[in-house]
Amino acid sequence: MKLNILGCHAATPLDNAHTTSQILEVKDHLFLIDCGEGTQIKLRHHKIKFSRIKHIFISHLHGDHFFGLVGLISTFRLLGRTADLHVYGPKGIKEVLTLQLKISNSWTNYNLFFHELENKESEIIFEDDSVTVNTIPLDHRVYTNGFLFKEKLGLRRLDKEKIKKYNIFNYDFQNLKLGKDLVLDDGTLLKNEMLTLDPNPIKCYAFCSDTAYNESILPLIYKVDLLYHDSTFLKVHKNLAEKTRHSTAFQAAKIAHLAQVKCLVLGHFSSRYRDKNNFLIEASSFFDAVHLAADGEIFDI
Amino acid sequence: MKLNILGCHAATPLDNAHTTSQILEVKDHLFLIDCGEGTQIKLRHHKIKFSRIKHIFISHLHGDHFFGLVGLISTFRLLGRTADLHVYGPKGIKEVLTLQLKISNSWTNYNLFFHELENKESEIIFEDDSVTVNTIPLDHRVYTNGFLFKEKLGLRRLDKEKIKKYNIFNYDFQNLKLGKDLVLDDGTLLKNEMLTLDPNPIKCYAFCSDTAYNESILPLIYKVDLLYHDSTFLKVHKNLAEKTRHSTAFQAAKIAHLAQVKCLVLGHFSSRYRDKNNFLIEASSFFDAVHLAADGEIFDI
Repeated sequence: MKLNILGCHAATPLDNAHTTSQILEVKDHLFLIDCGEGTQIKLRHHKIKFSRIKHIFISHLHGDHFFGLVGLISTFRLLGRTADLHVYGPKGIKEVLTLQLKISNSWTNYNLFFHELENKESEIIFEDDSVTVNTIPLDHRVYTNGFLFKEKLGLRRLDKEKIKKYNIFNYDFQNLKLGKDLVLDDGTLLKNEMLTLDPNPIKCYAFCSDTAYNESILPLIYKVDLLYHDSTFLKVHKNLAEKTRHSTAFQAAKIAHLAQVKCLVLGHFSSRYRDKNNFLIEASSFFDAVHLAADGEIFDI
Repeated sequence: MKLNILGCHAATPLDNAHTTSQILEVKDHLFLIDCGEGTQIKLRHHKIKFSRIKHIFISHLHGDHFFGLVGLISTFRLLGRTADLHVYGPKGIKEVLTLQLKISNSWTNYNLFFHELENKESEIIFEDDSVTVNTIPLDHRVYTNGFLFKEKLGLRRLDKEKIKKYNIFNYDFQNLKLGKDLVLDDGTLLKNEMLTLDPNPIKCYAFCSDTAYNESILPLIYKVDLLYHDSTFLKVHKNLAEKTRHSTAFQAAKIAHLAQVKCLVLGHFSSRYRDKNNFLIEASSFFDAVHLAADGEIFDI
């Protein structure tokens, strides 16, 4: 898993600070999470292949999280896209995107599927052989979901030394990966554990923005490898965070601590703060493995 | 008059090439013409004061000319704007903007007036003491207007030397500027022409994008000081220009020549051409005073 922060700035884009948008690379997927204005420009900047994006997850319908979506969808069309595109987001997203595409005469020539969300409980919204994506209901001024991206347990891995030692042929590899035992031509039974190693550990990424401090998300993000959490304000503006249903850096750290996540990334910074380092200082007082998001930063999970 | 090109690229924004948007500074106004995705970021980049923009003119509802509008309008609200904002654009613009603002919960707290256009003849859409703005009906795939910005003739200018020579007092200045004669205390009549100079010559700017070659615009842009004209293609792709209702550089030059404009700026370049200089070469063969638009370029008119 690899997380590429395209933007992590709150409310309104600045010259050097893009609003929320991220690319999560997991197995064969490139998932786009939120799509602030100018996301397509950031994708080009980072040389991310547009055609690899097949699933877009929108947390909520505040402009800084989706105003770039219609432009991206239109550009896909201009680039001659044929692959299906799936957009997951709050109810209403279909109407607003459809009207924009119609009025701008840029109706897509590829299949565009809207998966409108309105469930207030966590639900699986995407699943294939390698990954599941669950919603994480968040506590914001409007209906908002975070997203939990979870790898599925992969196949067992061949133990190269043992494979060589017992002179195992290629055509047995798949069965071994599937956990089956092997009977050699002379009748010897080789138990699967003798030839294989456990699958790679599964990785989990939880995106939680925008949200107020709310412990109801803890069971969903328990021990994830990486948690990206709303950190719009510093503790000194706790009241503002409360009022706008955002979090402080300290609150994000507290959530990370309680959920025992491996690593916390703070983001969605308000432009009132010039020195982002104060977010790090504030969160570090409560939780060690904390990092600041920054445009263009990549986190290997 | 000063024209600031924020973007002049066709169809879809690239990392270093913004879609159509311009700021025209004329008298006390900062007019925004078209508003491709990311325009607000360009405005910040060029340190243009958001609060000075009170009138926005949208040529047509293709995404590369208006997808940045909703973000800009939302940002105005976040910045605490109180001044009225006027948006002039094709019928439909109100519905699509209104829905986006509603769904993103960013309804404005300042007065937002939509002036929806559907007239196929040229009409005055803005006028005050110093400037008029007329539509220039264009020939594109969808209903499209160019815009003609025309200064009004100003007051007569005081001839400083003469003012000194005749020892004229401040309180007579306004009447002189208005063209009135002056009678001195000793009864001497000073004709206005003895004390003043003609007003500054009026300036005109015509924005004509997107459009196919169409001579019907000639009377409207006759002898303007600066013409910005669609130049999406080179002559080699004339058929494509015809089909998509765009122009070639050569056609733009021909229009400039026939209208006897003082200066032509080419823009709205297709991304298929790496070397923009070919647009200049092609147009120069027919019209001398031609320039290429470029992001960040400023033309003093």
